[in-house]
Amino acid sequence: MKVSARNVFKGNISALRPGTVNAEVEIALGGGDALVAIVTMESMKTLELAEGKEVMALVKAPWVMVMTEADGITLSARNTLRGTVKSVENGAVNSEVLISLPGGTEVAAVVTKDAVGELGLRPGVAATAVIKASNVILGVPA
Amino acid sequence: MKVSARNVFKGNISALRPGTVNAEVEIALGGGDALVAIVTMESMKTLELAEGKEVMALVKAPWVMVMTEADGITLSARNTLRGTVKSVENGAVNSEVLISLPGGTEVAAVVTKDAVGELGLRPGVAATAVIKASNVILGVPA
Amino acid sequence: MKVSARNVFKGNISALRPGTVNAEVEIALGGGDALVAIVTMESMKTLELAEGKEVMALVKAPWVMVMTEADGITLSARNTLRGTVKSVENGAVNSEVLISLPGGTEVAAVVTKDAVGELGLRPGVAATAVIKASNVILGVPA
Repeated sequence: MKVSARNVFKGNISALRPGTVNAEVEIALGGGDALVAIVTMESMKTLELAEGKEVMALVKAPWVMVMTEADGITLSARNTLRGTVKSVENGAVNSEVLISLPGGTEVAAVVTKDAVGELGLRPGVAATAVIKASNVILGVPA
Repeated sequence: MKVSARNVFKGNISALRPGTVNAEVEIALGGGDALVAIVTMESMKTLELAEGKEVMALVKAPWVMVMTEADGITLSARNTLRGTVKSVENGAVNSEVLISLPGGTEVAAVVTKDAVGELGLRPGVAATAVIKASNVILGVPA
Repeated sequence: MKVSARNVFKGNISALRPGTVNAEVEIALGGGDALVAIVTMESMKTLELAEGKEVMALVKAPWVMVMTEADGITLSARNTLRGTVKSVENGAVNSEVLISLPGGTEVAAVVTKDAVGELGLRPGVAATAVIKASNVILGVPA
């Protein structure tokens, strides 16, 4: 499989919390980094998700928000991943920002070029990648 | 906090409707403008959401759809915000469109440059910003 | 109605599965192509969705993921639409990719230009459009 999503995270399910409609899936990405996904109960069954199982988590870069000075705020989004800007690539309107998490995972975000300026994003700056758990698509070998 | 999201709406919760899995949160943005967000019940508790509480609603510009001639259609999206185009900034593929709502709130959308042409988006034109309630991220002071 | 969404699919509801919170809506797009949408039960009632009813399904191009060599993988996303690349239009950072499905439906995706290179996307190449059912907005005549 090759996929256009800039973020293809491989990991193992560290916790699985089934609900009435959706299941919350916690994925250990290695190095201590982690990601939470929400999938429907139907997907949980189809993909035969279980603790320990290896999965791929796919997230398109435009679905990732970037935040700085994140100390004063709590968000409804389940993933607020603190790291450091690794690179910034500017286009005419949008820019692609790469954030390295402490465990070595890299998260790609597409944000407007204006945002890059306002947040002062450049290599070495502390930044948080915000990902809604429901925007994570899970994949398993067929 | 600084955030890459082009839309950071501040307001107070005017209605809160808890469900079995999700809660629907209605936010008064001032000037009569309003926004509906859907968050999980877990987030409702973590963020201690309650009527009257001040919250921030974050929406990335690529998550906003723009519609014109909206009279003949009803959408499943909870937010169809009628306003007027304030500005259009063109890139190679994408454009950023700013829509002013009657109460003064401004909504930023990233759409393709083709769409700008087809819809005839330019300052002064009537346009509706469409935002899915589940694409709104809520934030409260930590 | 005119809308910025690059994907406006017209079809008839072929199956409707109400749940406790959400309803799953299957839409026949013609030519055998089909799309699944998830809307809230409230939207199902407001839009008076029923089997056979004609609806419009709106999907912004940045919400569509593109996949190649899709044989070995099962995804949590409900829509994995196999087709053929019809065209690729490159911008500075992003590209718009048009995928034709067997039944004649065309799906537009905005992906990074890097992804176009990595996946070898060009007219005639087999490619799968991945769309989360919850990212489909339904519309009916008002």
